[in-house]
Amino acid sequence: MTSSVYSAAVVGLGPMGAAIARAFLGAGVDTTVWNRTRAKAEALAARGARVAADLPAAVGQADVVVTVLRDHAATRRFLETVPSDLRAGRAFVVLASATPAEARRTQEWATERGFALLQGAIMVPEPLIGTDDALVLYSGEQRLLDRWRPVLEVAAPRSVFLGPDPGSAALHDTAMAQVFFAAMTAFLHSAAMATAQGLTATEFLPWARESLALLPDAFAQLAADVDAGTYDGAEDNLLMELSGLEHIHATSVEAGVDLRLPALLRDLARRAVDAGHGADSWSRVVEVLRAGSPTV
Amino acid sequence: MTSSVYSAAVVGLGPMGAAIARAFLGAGVDTTVWNRTRAKAEALAARGARVAADLPAAVGQADVVVTVLRDHAATRRFLETVPSDLRAGRAFVVLASATPAEARRTQEWATERGFALLQGAIMVPEPLIGTDDALVLYSGEQRLLDRWRPVLEVAAPRSVFLGPDPGSAALHDTAMAQVFFAAMTAFLHSAAMATAQGLTATEFLPWARESLALLPDAFAQLAADVDAGTYDGAEDNLLMELSGLEHIHATSVEAGVDLRLPALLRDLARRAVDAGHGADSWSRVVEVLRAGSPTV
Repeated sequence: MTSSVYSAAVVGLGPMGAAIARAFLGAGVDTTVWNRTRAKAEALAARGARVAADLPAAVGQADVVVTVLRDHAATRRFLETVPSDLRAGRAFVVLASATPAEARRTQEWATERGFALLQGAIMVPEPLIGTDDALVLYSGEQRLLDRWRPVLEVAAPRSVFLGPDPGSAALHDTAMAQVFFAAMTAFLHSAAMATAQGLTATEFLPWARESLALLPDAFAQLAADVDAGTYDGAEDNLLMELSGLEHIHATSVEAGVDLRLPALLRDLARRAVDAGHGADSWSRVVEVLRAGSPTV
Repeated sequence: MTSSVYSAAVVGLGPMGAAIARAFLGAGVDTTVWNRTRAKAEALAARGARVAADLPAAVGQADVVVTVLRDHAATRRFLETVPSDLRAGRAFVVLASATPAEARRTQEWATERGFALLQGAIMVPEPLIGTDDALVLYSGEQRLLDRWRPVLEVAAPRSVFLGPDPGSAALHDTAMAQVFFAAMTAFLHSAAMATAQGLTATEFLPWARESLALLPDAFAQLAADVDAGTYDGAEDNLLMELSGLEHIHATSVEAGVDLRLPALLRDLARRAVDAGHGADSWSRVVEVLRAGSPTV
């Protein structure tokens, strides 16, 4: 590895920040760590991390400062504490979730204050950091990614640049996370229904994976429909699907489970059917979503 | 094919019923079709289907009567019209979504009225019917599936028996469909966010598939946690995830999209965090769901 010619700092040592620091250390990157709770930093000393005495010390020793803080507000609070003379001459890589608009504001805010700032979004769970599957999406200052790719790819071999809009990584992050968490929630909801009927969640697992296996192709059809603005229901239609959704809701009632997810799915289908689109496919629901939240 | 030694009737010729009839006809099964709107039946005559003059005629010519009607209420209305002397001596296969409790009631109702009834749930979209991937889940009267498997496997080579509880197919159906439709809805929600920011849904598609690729392993971890009743958050935790969910919600606000899905996900995480479980993993949300719907 030639990574040892680089020095990095990792600020914020929650599970994700600690995983990134471990990946750096494992690849021989000279790594300084800092965390508000110092014990988390010291836990990495055994792996060869320098534990910074204070924040300026952490920054001053690094070519690349990677922040893995809870959100952009926390990140800006950290950046404000960086002395002016330590802002130039190094790259600050911000890995925290945000909205696209907030990411654009942070970019402007940081540029005004003399930071060379690159924003990224971590798209994999912590155990995948440092593996070939690790994916981080970047957008904004491409030259910073190009320059520091040898270090950043240690944590995420799949370090992808999306474009010059600093909000683009945040947009992809939120849009992808929504798919992930909606599915994770639906699995738990279905597991709650199944366990209420005497199955184990593990017995239900292979069946949930059957549903997952249909989704790559189903998403492609949805995407084609959304972009075409046509919602042909020859193969499936909302009226039939509404009937299925009524049964998901009623099964949740039988199981005593929170009804909000099935009620929402049913309501979205019902609105499309009530608007005269019962013969259309599920993709028509995008128009219901675009109409905004109903005023109850 | 030896299937031609069997005769089948297909009652209800929506997209799914018509696909099943086409699969039967393609395999040489002697097939009679019936639909309330006669034109849908006649469309299959060119492929060799007999078009029944009336419902008793459809039933009288068949060893196996497959009903693909909208729900169990519609199915029971059809079954009531079957003359008593035509109920014995043939199998009635009901493919319609239901709740587990309703499936059990239909089974009892049908048995009392002299029907040999097998209930199944179709788990694939219509284009997959007749292909090797076609999956139908059955539960209840195993002897009927065993006896008529040669016919039923023409439509769905993967015809799986789940157990003697006639509600089991309905439970699996609703639980699997919930995962499918929640993900389908989240994709459309995310596509609406992405298109509001100038992306196409097709540009977003590969990224959504990245999220899907994480789910088989993530579901396995959720299932293990649910069955163990422990929700270790060492690798991810609700407090960090709540921050991400706030940003999905705020990105939806920026895009003017219906807020109900991200608001629900955020609320579920928030309730777990407020109950003191911020350091737990997402699997903890199962306990929030089991607590039932909040009274607002």
